[in-house]
Amino acid sequence: MKRRGIMFILSSPSGAGKTTLSRLLLQNDPNITMSISYTTRPPRPGEVDGVDYFFVSEKEFEKKADEKYFYEFAEVFGNFYGTPRKRVEEELVAGRDVLFDIDWQGTRRLTAKARDDIVSIFILPPAMDELARRLKARAQDSHDVIEKRMERVRDEISHWDEYDYVVINDSIDYSLQNILYILKAERLKRRRQNSLMEFVGDLLHQRG
Amino acid sequence: MKRRGIMFILSSPSGAGKTTLSRLLLQNDPNITMSISYTTRPPRPGEVDGVDYFFVSEKEFEKKADEKYFYEFAEVFGNFYGTPRKRVEEELVAGRDVLFDIDWQGTRRLTAKARDDIVSIFILPPAMDELARRLKARAQDSHDVIEKRMERVRDEISHWDEYDYVVINDSIDYSLQNILYILKAERLKRRRQNSLMEFVGDLLHQRG
Repeated sequence: MKRRGIMFILSSPSGAGKTTLSRLLLQNDPNITMSISYTTRPPRPGEVDGVDYFFVSEKEFEKKADEKYFYEFAEVFGNFYGTPRKRVEEELVAGRDVLFDIDWQGTRRLTAKARDDIVSIFILPPAMDELARRLKARAQDSHDVIEKRMERVRDEISHWDEYDYVVINDSIDYSLQNILYILKAERLKRRRQNSLMEFVGDLLHQRG
Repeated sequence: MKRRGIMFILSSPSGAGKTTLSRLLLQNDPNITMSISYTTRPPRPGEVDGVDYFFVSEKEFEKKADEKYFYEFAEVFGNFYGTPRKRVEEELVAGRDVLFDIDWQGTRRLTAKARDDIVSIFILPPAMDELARRLKARAQDSHDVIEKRMERVRDEISHWDEYDYVVINDSIDYSLQNILYILKAERLKRRRQNSLMEFVGDLLHQRG
């Protein structure tokens, strides 16, 4: 059945497993693709331009923002992040779903623009100690940055109640299954199945 | 996580596989239980009182209706059908889901009373010929009853757009999977997970 794609948002505090879950989701579902954001922050070790982000200068970013290139953009800790509009719209029209790995602020801005296309999931950590351990284990940031990030974790968590679904990430396998259930179920929503009206029209004209 | 149960409605024209799917759903999910309706229609061969329906006299039915025993009730082809309220409410409070095998009229009445608790799925047949064949194969009814029923099938189908989800029953296995996805996803809806507020409160008080 033909349908319009879904804008599928995964948010969580950093360290709660969202990046791993996004990667697994992309591997396990052939019909979802990642929205790659633009950012002015410098790449971290291992990050690849055009895969993790499109890394651009502040000047380039401003130009794109002026040209309405972004669905939404924002500044976080002095860096800019933006969601490009055109590719997303093309995917949705083609009936493919688009995954967004964004924070509560991005979710709010995107939801304000495209509520009907959006399904949002918040990933909660099962406990804070484990999450703090993971953040520290990354070990590429200074103590101050880690502290700042723990503060941001709490802030992010406090917005859990702005999401459609909540998954507690006790285990990656279990959470992945749950996210796949949500995606598969949302595709079956009547209002997303564009071609049903025509299908039923045909059905009612068939002789029994 | 503690949550309130879901009133899970499956509707379809007769012959589209709903009864088989209901049975399989009950077998495949340990947390859902069937709502057994009361009816004044006589049992068909093989139907068991207290399993398929509670078969009662019109007088008994009227008495229960007067006592507000039913969530909703209606007359279909001269027979009365009613959904008992108390057991359903007990199951929901205990966090168990309740399955309703009812038509569009029952769905409307139930939805008017309990929108937030309801998830409704409409099962469509892939084509009419197969459905007509199934109806005739039952062969326990007269030609007139079959004709009347085909008319009712078309009427029922015309209400597909009043449901939350639509599943086209191309294959029983595939449809069962889809229905299970919907059930599992709906359980993850933020607003159904009653104890999340407390869980997050605890989380934010834990030291990182």
